[in-house]
Amino acid sequence: MALRSGAVLHFAKGHGTENDFVVLPDLDGVLDLTPSLVRALCDRRGGIGADGVLRVVPAARVPGCEATSGAGWFMDYRNADGSVAEMCGNGIRVYARYLVESGLAGPGALRLATRDGVKQVRLAATGDVTVEMGSARALGASTVVLGGRACAGVHVDMGNPHLVCTVDDDLRSWDLSRPPAVDGATFPDGVNVEIVVRRGERHVAMRVYERGVGETRSCGTGACAVAVATSASISSADPSADTPADPRAEVPAEARWTVDVPGGRLTVDLELGGGAVRLAGPAVIVATGVLDDGWLAATASDAYLK
Amino acid sequence: MALRSGAVLHFAKGHGTENDFVVLPDLDGVLDLTPSLVRALCDRRGGIGADGVLRVVPAARVPGCEATSGAGWFMDYRNADGSVAEMCGNGIRVYARYLVESGLAGPGALRLATRDGVKQVRLAATGDVTVEMGSARALGASTVVLGGRACAGVHVDMGNPHLVCTVDDDLRSWDLSRPPAVDGATFPDGVNVEIVVRRGERHVAMRVYERGVGETRSCGTGACAVAVATSASISSADPSADTPADPRAEVPAEARWTVDVPGGRLTVDLELGGGAVRLAGPAVIVATGVLDDGWLAATASDAYLK
Repeated sequence: MALRSGAVLHFAKGHGTENDFVVLPDLDGVLDLTPSLVRALCDRRGGIGADGVLRVVPAARVPGCEATSGAGWFMDYRNADGSVAEMCGNGIRVYARYLVESGLAGPGALRLATRDGVKQVRLAATGDVTVEMGSARALGASTVVLGGRACAGVHVDMGNPHLVCTVDDDLRSWDLSRPPAVDGATFPDGVNVEIVVRRGERHVAMRVYERGVGETRSCGTGACAVAVATSASISSADPSADTPADPRAEVPAEARWTVDVPGGRLTVDLELGGGAVRLAGPAVIVATGVLDDGWLAATASDAYLK
Repeated sequence: MALRSGAVLHFAKGHGTENDFVVLPDLDGVLDLTPSLVRALCDRRGGIGADGVLRVVPAARVPGCEATSGAGWFMDYRNADGSVAEMCGNGIRVYARYLVESGLAGPGALRLATRDGVKQVRLAATGDVTVEMGSARALGASTVVLGGRACAGVHVDMGNPHLVCTVDDDLRSWDLSRPPAVDGATFPDGVNVEIVVRRGERHVAMRVYERGVGETRSCGTGACAVAVATSASISSADPSADTPADPRAEVPAEARWTVDVPGGRLTVDLELGGGAVRLAGPAVIVATGVLDDGWLAATASDAYLK
């Protein structure tokens, strides 16, 4: 179970609303994706450069995943820092796009296994990729301080924690260059913070600070959290104002939200039953190729061989 | 003279001390490298991501370059913003590494045409690539203000302008997050600013702010300028101190300088006669591949077809 000597390591680079990924096909399930290899691949100057790595491996090749009902593929997602993550809304859309473009799956509906369970994905004729993101839970109000300015927000759990802050002024006026100061009792492991303005009927624009990363061009779970939080009538940048309304109230019956992120436009469908949320948007493969043997040897030594 | 329908666009990604480039082989000289295509390729999230693009084209395919004595290849270098540039010390080293790795040239000595004339390049057995950078000219003293702190420097012309500031304190204590304030009369087109500390005998470490770019991981001409400037006894962070000595004086007879940059280690040889300077260091190909047809069509339309 080792890559044979002289085997080449194929890759693709792709992005979903400029949340970008190195895709590593591993059809035989022999690639040991070490943290050092992930960091080297994601290094934007010394490697390929990406927000994370998506290893494409048949579910049958993953111990404990073989029996997962109906999922042919497992998404092994890693953050750029080498850490393992359960799920990534933009990542799974790029993963699905790669499967279809490379001929490993047909267009239409796909079931993909992740560490957060099996996800339903659909590739539309328009190029958009849609993923069923599971349930959102709105958990009440909290406050964040960004660049010295306090802002009230709504805590939404999408599997990972979000604090959605709807503001009345220019998105660009908020300082996301440094980590937000949040309530450590509510968020012991930190929180992703979204700053949101309304653009129109069920149409918002957001910026996001991802915990442990910094400001990014897009965040799939963040866009979902924003749609959930702003589907209630919440609009306050003043923490001294009344506590934001419970976003579980006042959700419109038909709820397709347009969420503009710095890297493009996403669509979020709410009210699918049981708090379920659906995320859609473009997913693009930029290039495909092979990693250079010399680079791989110098960068990751033989740590990637099982 | 157009890419035939269905033709694939090959690329490589490489770096020299983490100054990184998208390499585009164009053996038939048919690729019209538009600014929009360059920007799309260099976009770190929506494209491949790089500091610049190196188009690899036979000199015989470049109008006006055919007669250049002995140079088989022309380096068409573009900055990430799409603008044309004459020369790039790290770029030409990556270009040479690509020629040899791809079998387009043999190892050893190469003559490469650039917009700044023909350059001699040599690939050593160790993996280092050496380039004759032409002549450096030290032009006197000036002062820069970085994050509110003033610093005396030496103006060195390497074809492009540099202001080399040798300091006594921690390199990390200097703020290169914003453009330096420099003397507009001396530098009407701006200047690249290097902050330098001494590490030992003919051994320095530097950070660099490249004009129009920001702080980068490496700068080939900057490393050369630093060796030239610090080969004289200049060490002052205080603009009220004596004017720095003329660096044209006190140049040691044997002068091989080690210049540490954030992205690695470079070597600069001085005193080659006529003020000539030689730059050496690693140059690495990370990956090779093809650009996705769909991405290319959506991003750059058909602007890349002549």
